[in-house]
Amino acid sequence: MLVGRLVSVPLHLRTRHLSRILPRVLSRRNLHSEHLETSTAIMSSVNKTAHAFDKTRLDALLNRRFFYAPAFEIYGGVAGLYDYGPPGSSLQANILAEWRRHFIIEEAMLEVDTTVMTPAPVFETSGHVARFADWMVKDTINGEVLRADHLVKNVLEARLTGDREARGVAAAPVEAAPADKKKKKQVKSTAVKLDDSVVAEYESILAQLDNYSGPELGQLMRTHTITNPSSGNPVGEPQLFNLMFASSIGPTGQHPGFLRPETAQGHFLNFARLLEFNNGRVPFASAQVGRSFRNEISPRAGLLRVREFTMAEIEHFVDPLDKSHARFNEVADIELVLLDKYVQAAGQSTIKRMTVGKAVQEGVIANETLAYFVARIYLFLLRIGIDKTRLRFRQHMANEMAHYATDCWDAEIQNSVGGWTECVGCADRAAYDLTVHANKTKQPLVVRQALKEPVVEERAVAEFDKKALGKTFKGDAGAVTGAVEALDEAGLMRLKGELEQGPATIIADGKEFTLQPSMLTIERKTFKTNIREFTPNVIEPSFGIGRILYCLLEHSFWSREQDVERGVLSLPAVVAPTKVLIVPLSSRAEFDPLVKEVSLRFRKAGVHARVDDSNTSIGKRYARNDELGTPFGVTLDFASVQNRTMTLRERDTMDQRIGSIDDVIATVTELVNGNIEWAEACERLPAYDGVQAVE
Amino acid sequence: MLVGRLVSVPLHLRTRHLSRILPRVLSRRNLHSEHLETSTAIMSSVNKTAHAFDKTRLDALLNRRFFYAPAFEIYGGVAGLYDYGPPGSSLQANILAEWRRHFIIEEAMLEVDTTVMTPAPVFETSGHVARFADWMVKDTINGEVLRADHLVKNVLEARLTGDREARGVAAAPVEAAPADKKKKKQVKSTAVKLDDSVVAEYESILAQLDNYSGPELGQLMRTHTITNPSSGNPVGEPQLFNLMFASSIGPTGQHPGFLRPETAQGHFLNFARLLEFNNGRVPFASAQVGRSFRNEISPRAGLLRVREFTMAEIEHFVDPLDKSHARFNEVADIELVLLDKYVQAAGQSTIKRMTVGKAVQEGVIANETLAYFVARIYLFLLRIGIDKTRLRFRQHMANEMAHYATDCWDAEIQNSVGGWTECVGCADRAAYDLTVHANKTKQPLVVRQALKEPVVEERAVAEFDKKALGKTFKGDAGAVTGAVEALDEAGLMRLKGELEQGPATIIADGKEFTLQPSMLTIERKTFKTNIREFTPNVIEPSFGIGRILYCLLEHSFWSREQDVERGVLSLPAVVAPTKVLIVPLSSRAEFDPLVKEVSLRFRKAGVHARVDDSNTSIGKRYARNDELGTPFGVTLDFASVQNRTMTLRERDTMDQRIGSIDDVIATVTELVNGNIEWAEACERLPAYDGVQAVE
Repeated sequence: MLVGRLVSVPLHLRTRHLSRILPRVLSRRNLHSEHLETSTAIMSSVNKTAHAFDKTRLDALLNRRFFYAPAFEIYGGVAGLYDYGPPGSSLQANILAEWRRHFIIEEAMLEVDTTVMTPAPVFETSGHVARFADWMVKDTINGEVLRADHLVKNVLEARLTGDREARGVAAAPVEAAPADKKKKKQVKSTAVKLDDSVVAEYESILAQLDNYSGPELGQLMRTHTITNPSSGNPVGEPQLFNLMFASSIGPTGQHPGFLRPETAQGHFLNFARLLEFNNGRVPFASAQVGRSFRNEISPRAGLLRVREFTMAEIEHFVDPLDKSHARFNEVADIELVLLDKYVQAAGQSTIKRMTVGKAVQEGVIANETLAYFVARIYLFLLRIGIDKTRLRFRQHMANEMAHYATDCWDAEIQNSVGGWTECVGCADRAAYDLTVHANKTKQPLVVRQALKEPVVEERAVAEFDKKALGKTFKGDAGAVTGAVEALDEAGLMRLKGELEQGPATIIADGKEFTLQPSMLTIERKTFKTNIREFTPNVIEPSFGIGRILYCLLEHSFWSREQDVERGVLSLPAVVAPTKVLIVPLSSRAEFDPLVKEVSLRFRKAGVHARVDDSNTSIGKRYARNDELGTPFGVTLDFASVQNRTMTLRERDTMDQRIGSIDDVIATVTELVNGNIEWAEACERLPAYDGVQAVE
Repeated sequence: MLVGRLVSVPLHLRTRHLSRILPRVLSRRNLHSEHLETSTAIMSSVNKTAHAFDKTRLDALLNRRFFYAPAFEIYGGVAGLYDYGPPGSSLQANILAEWRRHFIIEEAMLEVDTTVMTPAPVFETSGHVARFADWMVKDTINGEVLRADHLVKNVLEARLTGDREARGVAAAPVEAAPADKKKKKQVKSTAVKLDDSVVAEYESILAQLDNYSGPELGQLMRTHTITNPSSGNPVGEPQLFNLMFASSIGPTGQHPGFLRPETAQGHFLNFARLLEFNNGRVPFASAQVGRSFRNEISPRAGLLRVREFTMAEIEHFVDPLDKSHARFNEVADIELVLLDKYVQAAGQSTIKRMTVGKAVQEGVIANETLAYFVARIYLFLLRIGIDKTRLRFRQHMANEMAHYATDCWDAEIQNSVGGWTECVGCADRAAYDLTVHANKTKQPLVVRQALKEPVVEERAVAEFDKKALGKTFKGDAGAVTGAVEALDEAGLMRLKGELEQGPATIIADGKEFTLQPSMLTIERKTFKTNIREFTPNVIEPSFGIGRILYCLLEHSFWSREQDVERGVLSLPAVVAPTKVLIVPLSSRAEFDPLVKEVSLRFRKAGVHARVDDSNTSIGKRYARNDELGTPFGVTLDFASVQNRTMTLRERDTMDQRIGSIDDVIATVTELVNGNIEWAEACERLPAYDGVQAVE
């Protein structure tokens, strides 16, 4: 699961924690950290000159080029459901292909593909039926439904902003957080000065918002007269709303089912088969890419919060006594940006830069395996094009982590919609999941390990005179035996002592029975075992692909210096929807054979190319493909037909080079495969100073 | 959709037709064709010697090696839901990767990725809410639910079998169809002779089983005293059961929704955006791979009929006036095995072997584009390893095709569970889908094409004296005008004639109005247009990936001549879960550096390799990988450490060759990429006659 907080502290039903795959701009600690880590632009490549990031322009581009769009748009759409168009689908497919290569193939993980439709008992065991829920409130007059914690947050923040305005204090700290800018649009602030004590109270509420239960949120709304900002109407009492989509399996409705809200249970339920597939040995990891579904209360954050989404999840099963990792040395020197729990608990947000090795050494990250995956996540995100300066790892604080979890780190990526947004979770979930399913199903979800040296152990055991027991206790004999056998070492030894004095009593099935010394003997005996049996722990990296994809689009977007209208998506070749655009000078038939030949040769080289022979200028065709993130373009013109030459254009620099068709194809192939950089391509191919492709 | 019969003949609710993605062994015509096309073994490669196909052994292998298993097995499982384990997931991923290469990349299709969760209005428009259903009956005593048509079929077939037994007729014709063997297990036949007239009646019922409505099936059950074979209890009246899983979107249950039973609607709803992405031009195709869900009544055919499955669907949008295909010449000479509708309608099942070109020429396949896709489907299935002799294309008969469809061909693959089973549908759906959604949403789902020559057209138009109309008809004036404008050419000319005689009457909004000649003039006028507007037709190839995968496993399975226990899956390298097994002689540390080096080099070459360093003999490790379908194995031994040599083993022949590590890696890479065959590898690498890898 993307958030490891499911089935958390059982004492108070802190449900908002349990389900959230949400932008973590919720609490004030993040507002400050924006300042420290706000990166200004997407200057990862040398020649780019960006205008200030403009979300409206990016949205227009993504819509115009059909990266994605609201699903069922012609039917009016449904909040939180999006369809990916051709470039979005390809981008997603390429991110997933790279994910498979980076994780599954590189680490020899065991891929699984399990069903979405899940019978209810599974989620009863896992805790989702009881607790995968949010608190919602209803507008008592128009029936609008709102998330309770979001309502409190939005209203109090708006009042604080109004107070600052009234006091003439610059609103900068709030404006610096893009997400809050957006929120301000929803809940208008009015310049009303508040008492200092009220300001302090509001700030205190906001700082611990994640800690309130539903009834407490209801109390807050009454105390502070919080109403629905869009209507001014009062809202009702907070109600729990389970976020799983329900359905029913089979023709008679006899099997209630849910759509999975995460892929994780599918891994756990197949643990025994996977272990056998791996020859009975741990560590090993299963991996799965698939759809999950969450019936969000009122999703409004684009791809960052949706009702149906693609996840990629890994469950790495490891010996609880040995969480070292064989390849740890390969990542030990990588420096990460960390925001640890102690810093956050102290109300601060000072990040630390630290190598992975040092983080484990100093106990910042709990163990090698967890740290190894944090580092691998980092490498993956950089590889697909996430801006390093807008990526950090934030540790869960004790109160947001499930009670069974050991440690949990989120990869947070900064973006204009959600601020620092959790895009990957990486948790050490201990033995929780396998244990609950094993208890429920009575299946032994354990590893049995041959010991090099047998373990010799002395422990007390009871031997019964079954005949005597049967005679005295009749039908209760079994219960009595069971009650004795259920005693631990100390209990058995205590009973032995009592029996040495005479009859002793024991409680079985709620009744009291008197044991005579003749009925049983208790002795310490020596046991020798060659097998160690244990429930493995689970380290779980969990990726929200849509969130990563959206952040990547933001990080890749900029505009040409000479013209803000000319948007570019500088996607790395490895994930770019199309790698090469083939541009014939015109759609004349004489170019056809060459277009076909070049297409075929790129295809054979495994380079995804597309032809654009539309009736528009070459410059316009390139501009369109800058918006699509196509890194390279080749032009076929009359010279190509005569001399078999081709020009090559690079997207970010707009550099143009020329060479023989053979050389250009070979160079592009190496560029796309990441074997060479553009600088090297320039050494191989001379600059082109022709005229027809002027932009 | 996999079956194009949805929303079929509206006169009688032939719902069983509408939803079926099922093995088409239902009607007797298929029983005969088994004989003609039954292929004996999987002898596609030279050196294989197969034992007779043994379904039990295959199932044991697939279970043991975790290709797939019932989902939620430790919770007792749920019918029709399966999880794929590591080899099954990889096989599926490789089939899909090849599908993407073969269709999306090769044909420059526009990939989309649309949501599973769909609001109800979409499926109301498409017809699924009303008609995506099967007829079911309930056992009146134990409540068991059965599919009505299957019940009739199973019981009557069992009686016919019993009759043949009583008459001493060999039961061969039925036994030759594997699916019916299975059915016989479900419904036991007893040797009871029937009257000749009864035999004839049963055969007639079975031959037209697809034609009966629910009430007719109920009547048949009463007439022929058909009861639940497993209990002997009577069954109730057939009831319609909609196969879509229902859910509800949002917190208040205000949006009823369904899980899509196919991906097709997602393409159609995005048509306008896709058209724009393609610069407003047709033909173009969208393509999608994704999950679909069907709440089958009582699925019992393994992967052939499931409640959740992966589909790959293409919607090719084409000008209805021009269904030629630019690349048709590339496939025209391919010879296909065809079972056309005329042959079937005549109660026969004689297949025709015919080139694609001739099939179009003679009108057997309706048009070039449809035939092109049939051929491309054929090439795809062969490429991934489907046995050519167990593949045919069956045309839908008039009565099983939707009324709007022009022509439809199913790729049927023979297997032991479902006989000849529909695995890919390929239908020309005409303009149906875009038309219904355009009508419902009032969105223009059309292509606007600039005409080279303007079209000049003369037609009658009415011009009104609005003042006079308003004076006479007041608030009804608009309705009257509308009624006149709604008349067609003939109607207008008739009205013109009447008005020349004096007042005329017209009906508007159900009322009669008298038009005076002074109120309007009707004249024929000349119109000139430069734009042609049309709704494109849709050619839809639709792939059931799980069915294809299962058939492929059957076609690939055989046992070694010397030992029937030694199963082999001869999967082609392109889809094999792992391409190369790296086998160190032992798990000694001295092999480690070499194992790492060879692994890394395969990875760099893009060849998916796995290391097996388990503590078992090399022969056993190879045998395990024969079951996993791994085509190649390389052994690292002491000679490897000393001389940098490596042996190479081929799965099907068990041939062993030897060469330098460099040469073996290069050779395997070429083998896996399909550049060379094993024979050529043998020319490059000498035979190995060492001892350590003896099997």
